[in-house]
Amino acid sequence: MTLRTGIAIPQSKKGVVTRRRFVMASVGVAGAAASGRAFADSLADVPPRAPGAPLSGHSERSKYVELSRIPEAGPGIRSVSPIDAINSKTPLQKLVGDITPSDLHYERSHSGVPDLDPAKHRLLIHGLVKAPVVLTVDDLVAMPSVSRVHFIECTGNGWENWKKADPNLTVQNTHGLVSTNEWTGVPLGFLIDLVGKDRGSTWMLAEGGDGAGVDRSIPLTDEIMNEAIIAYGQNGEPLRPAHGFPIRLVMPGFEGNLNIKWLRRLKFGDQPWMTRWETARYTQLLPDGKAMQFQLRMETNSVITSPSGMMQIRPGYNRITGLAWSGHGKIAKAEVSTDGGRIWKEAQLNGLVLPRAQARFQMGWEWDGKPTKIVSRSTDEKHNVQPDRQTLIDQVGTNAVFHYNAQQTWSVDAEGRVRNVLA
Amino acid sequence: MTLRTGIAIPQSKKGVVTRRRFVMASVGVAGAAASGRAFADSLADVPPRAPGAPLSGHSERSKYVELSRIPEAGPGIRSVSPIDAINSKTPLQKLVGDITPSDLHYERSHSGVPDLDPAKHRLLIHGLVKAPVVLTVDDLVAMPSVSRVHFIECTGNGWENWKKADPNLTVQNTHGLVSTNEWTGVPLGFLIDLVGKDRGSTWMLAEGGDGAGVDRSIPLTDEIMNEAIIAYGQNGEPLRPAHGFPIRLVMPGFEGNLNIKWLRRLKFGDQPWMTRWETARYTQLLPDGKAMQFQLRMETNSVITSPSGMMQIRPGYNRITGLAWSGHGKIAKAEVSTDGGRIWKEAQLNGLVLPRAQARFQMGWEWDGKPTKIVSRSTDEKHNVQPDRQTLIDQVGTNAVFHYNAQQTWSVDAEGRVRNVLA
Repeated sequence: MTLRTGIAIPQSKKGVVTRRRFVMASVGVAGAAASGRAFADSLADVPPRAPGAPLSGHSERSKYVELSRIPEAGPGIRSVSPIDAINSKTPLQKLVGDITPSDLHYERSHSGVPDLDPAKHRLLIHGLVKAPVVLTVDDLVAMPSVSRVHFIECTGNGWENWKKADPNLTVQNTHGLVSTNEWTGVPLGFLIDLVGKDRGSTWMLAEGGDGAGVDRSIPLTDEIMNEAIIAYGQNGEPLRPAHGFPIRLVMPGFEGNLNIKWLRRLKFGDQPWMTRWETARYTQLLPDGKAMQFQLRMETNSVITSPSGMMQIRPGYNRITGLAWSGHGKIAKAEVSTDGGRIWKEAQLNGLVLPRAQARFQMGWEWDGKPTKIVSRSTDEKHNVQPDRQTLIDQVGTNAVFHYNAQQTWSVDAEGRVRNVLA
Repeated sequence: MTLRTGIAIPQSKKGVVTRRRFVMASVGVAGAAASGRAFADSLADVPPRAPGAPLSGHSERSKYVELSRIPEAGPGIRSVSPIDAINSKTPLQKLVGDITPSDLHYERSHSGVPDLDPAKHRLLIHGLVKAPVVLTVDDLVAMPSVSRVHFIECTGNGWENWKKADPNLTVQNTHGLVSTNEWTGVPLGFLIDLVGKDRGSTWMLAEGGDGAGVDRSIPLTDEIMNEAIIAYGQNGEPLRPAHGFPIRLVMPGFEGNLNIKWLRRLKFGDQPWMTRWETARYTQLLPDGKAMQFQLRMETNSVITSPSGMMQIRPGYNRITGLAWSGHGKIAKAEVSTDGGRIWKEAQLNGLVLPRAQARFQMGWEWDGKPTKIVSRSTDEKHNVQPDRQTLIDQVGTNAVFHYNAQQTWSVDAEGRVRNVLA
């Protein structure tokens, strides 16, 4: 199904469209006061009914639907052989609703995708605890579980636009390193209770079983002890190998790299371990040349997914839709400007609005055919407002690579071409 | 990942497990006061780390995970060639959380699975309306949408146990005709407003584009006009052919067959059309031999998915988990009895609890090794309580085929074998 963005949809207040306004504005619809002849014409192409294919064990996608991530080798490096890919981005421009299909959840890996044997996999929990344990996957599945819908976002999401804006990028290129799934697993708090964390344990090391052995130090705040999950399920089924099978850490609202995949060890201690991932890798270079460690929470963010980069629109009514999310909690408001940020209107949140999950927004827009810029901004329940680019740059400069949550602007030229621009 | 049901998990009040009780009851866990030697032994099988496979466009399932529906030819007819299958059941015993993976959402079809070309598909809306229209799929995608998580359930779900209980059935056989997805599409109310329903329009005919041309008459209650969706998306992506691509009707809380797939026509009128699907097919045969039409709403229901039919458990602590749902609204309570229905305990609802969606429940259970029966029952927010089998039979007899929502009992014998029984 290709997304046709030119069809005429009028908007009244807050995305409510009335019949009268729709019919008046309607250009692509055969109906209204259509004659019998017009009906016959508009139905002429409909194929006759016919028996379908036999029922099966799995419902595959339609041959008319093309959905795929794009593996990339890094910021701005889009044509790569699979072996060089370090991430694979979600096709946000083709998705609807709030949930990301499991096979299209973004990937980010430092040593490819291991497919671990769950019967041999172990989780060691040790360090400053009263009763260290080694757990099997079956042990975890037998424990009390929770299921929560959360986004996971690579801290590098948005890095394409830190210094310049390539006009040929789609929203998959600029923002495809964030996805939302329902995660099922054991609350971290249950395991902490099980092993008996020492009073002096204020940090936890989480280590992955991939070739790179990614490991991160995690501060044991009340929020994290209450909300982190040792997950074995995504969207109702076991994790897929690219997303940490058989178990991963899910850290709602925090940097993707803290959500350790292929989790094999949790160690408790009284200070961070200063692993290479928090000294050489996931630090933020500040304007003065110093590096900031442990900028862990993902900020409030949003992006218009349609119309978006490389799409083509027509004058008249267009539906604007996108996604908003925040590591601080629920999205309280998504706003859209169709004049480059001067006038903002509140968009409608039309799906699930859950803490630390992507929320779908929409708004009607009548485009007058003149060049303009469209942009969205989010506000979360803690009153954090997504900054415009200049505000963000003023604060953190352009040395940084991570945590780029500036408002995304798409330009629309007189021919209706939608392109990535800085602001 | 196979589900190991024998691991020792203790339960205190409402599924809360304390460290002390877990360690005391623990048999499968290497830890607690384990020595260094025990740790080494328990980690001996863990394979060394190695580079993984390259990143890709799609995250496929692990080779260690087997998940498939089972096509069936009807109640009790389980070995069939695909061409004879009329439904294909969801593997509830292998799923976690609340969402059903799109490719495992149950199928029910009267003429196989057409894969329609969305560019040629049309939706005709006519009858007692002011402005009939013919809409393309792109027209619908451009309209304001909503995204809602809802179950769809075949009205025949449970029919295997109306008259007898085959002890060799799994929960996939007995209850695999219900699934929960996030559905995205245009609210029916928007289209009704668009075409201008006549005051006298009290019914709507919805017709599918499959070979069988399934069509049903739907009463235009306020609830249905407010909640029905003309859906084009499921779990974030376009519908799959088995689930109605490119568009289907979603009727939250009502019989699956009303959720017309491959939707091609909505006709408004002042009385039901008495199609063959509501005269010959989806009627309920009462004890007195009369047939009841238009029993449309799905009742409150629940089932324990683990331990369940054909599983094997061990004495000690077992985690009981299952799903509860109701066509009337949200699930208010799920209860579990481990003594055949004498004593009931409230289980924990540990995931999403949304209107007309499946809700996951769990409870800890210490099995003493003696033969017993485990059973669940649900209560919805409208105070409807799932009946036991005898109460249901007393009301509707055993002539019926549809709407079997009696409590599901699983027997456990002295060897820990779990089997399907009537009560």
